[in-house]
Amino acid sequence: MSEPLRGILLDMDGVLYVGDKPVPGAAEAVAWCRQAGIPLRFLTNTTSRPRAALVEKLARFGIEATEAEILTPPVVARAWLAEHVEGPVALFVPEATRAEFSGLPQLADPAAGGAGAVVLGDLGEGWDYPTLNTAFRLLMAEPPPPLVALGLTRYWKAPDGLRLDVGPFVRALEYASGREAVVLGKPARPFFQAALDQLGLPAAQVLMIGDDIRGDVGAAQAAGLRAALVRTGKFRPSDLEGDIRPDAVLDSLADLPAWWQKNA
Amino acid sequence: MSEPLRGILLDMDGVLYVGDKPVPGAAEAVAWCRQAGIPLRFLTNTTSRPRAALVEKLARFGIEATEAEILTPPVVARAWLAEHVEGPVALFVPEATRAEFSGLPQLADPAAGGAGAVVLGDLGEGWDYPTLNTAFRLLMAEPPPPLVALGLTRYWKAPDGLRLDVGPFVRALEYASGREAVVLGKPARPFFQAALDQLGLPAAQVLMIGDDIRGDVGAAQAAGLRAALVRTGKFRPSDLEGDIRPDAVLDSLADLPAWWQKNA
Repeated sequence: MSEPLRGILLDMDGVLYVGDKPVPGAAEAVAWCRQAGIPLRFLTNTTSRPRAALVEKLARFGIEATEAEILTPPVVARAWLAEHVEGPVALFVPEATRAEFSGLPQLADPAAGGAGAVVLGDLGEGWDYPTLNTAFRLLMAEPPPPLVALGLTRYWKAPDGLRLDVGPFVRALEYASGREAVVLGKPARPFFQAALDQLGLPAAQVLMIGDDIRGDVGAAQAAGLRAALVRTGKFRPSDLEGDIRPDAVLDSLADLPAWWQKNA
Repeated sequence: MSEPLRGILLDMDGVLYVGDKPVPGAAEAVAWCRQAGIPLRFLTNTTSRPRAALVEKLARFGIEATEAEILTPPVVARAWLAEHVEGPVALFVPEATRAEFSGLPQLADPAAGGAGAVVLGDLGEGWDYPTLNTAFRLLMAEPPPPLVALGLTRYWKAPDGLRLDVGPFVRALEYASGREAVVLGKPARPFFQAALDQLGLPAAQVLMIGDDIRGDVGAAQAAGLRAALVRTGKFRPSDLEGDIRPDAVLDSLADLPAWWQKNA
């Protein structure tokens, strides 16, 4: 017999909205959770926009949320760094992401060495050989600083075509340095753990809802949560033919209240 | 009982010379092989210098060799491409390496797409985000062209410090595209196979001699050859404490004739 469900983690893009369009009924489903007193957190790998911008976007779709309820890789990474790292951190992240790390001591001149940790984000055009080499040399110091990755996303689709995201650069520097990154984003377990810590609930009592069969559903299940797949966003019917079995499949988030009342 | 040894593969840097200094007795050992009629090939992952420059370097140390006897990743890659690929190849290699691919149809404008294969070398400062993204988009075409790597070297030591070599960029593009590279350099088996094909000998009859316990000795043994480790170049005593057992350990290449007469 499963434990009763008491909390919810919600992926954002593909579940609450698809690009700039709200998913019909999603706002009502979130409002229903609020009324029912079900604690929830929003979980997204988006690192290009600060949380304030995400709060605004949700508000436009009629969804109330606070910054504190939104967990992004930089937010979780900041907490991890504050707990685990002493020296100044070297941030290889876009300008918009840098704000999420305010308050942490930052390395003024990475080329001079001496990082307490090396943090890799979706730096995009900012990645060139000297920058990668600077990150590499920091990682080869003794004692070696931890390599922290803001997710492992492979690529994203820009208007002019596919573009490399943070993941490939993490793999490059892992291979060069012979070390493994601490990944603070989906699908890594510490990212889900940070959300559970905020909810104050054990994994077995929390439902993750997402549109990505691997990054949301499979990853959450691997972290001990139950997981529902929605048939919106990047969902494709073939997602249900693989080795990952969602604990629930919903046509959209609008079906959550009915499912929850019957199954939670 | 092992088969008799009939041919030799020689690593260059660390075996014949260390940087700009010849290994004492190495020239005499190579000359002895020639006189004894033992066929040999030189095997190096160096891609920064064309074979003509390597022949000159060997000549300065009193070692006779022809370009045809030197196998480098570009040379083996060119042969592989000629056999396996029809369309024009997209070369992400330094200018000096490009000459080794002359005669193969080359993609004039990689950003326009349409590569028959994507070849990655030690492009160094040439790696920037647009260049990596161009290679990535070529790899995501349908049908996907093969990803060919000129070795998997992690880094090298420049006068001003460590510098990323080709390997990290191969790993980045493998991860982004979800594909595996054909690696044509040590420690990959096809590289050794190309040398065996040139010698016209089966693996069991050939001895690889190198100073790298993994890239030379372990890799050659994995390809079915026997392998000798020399205590010159990058050799460290701890190399002999791991899981790889060389078939012979020589103080230097100077000891080869005596060893061969007793053991071949």
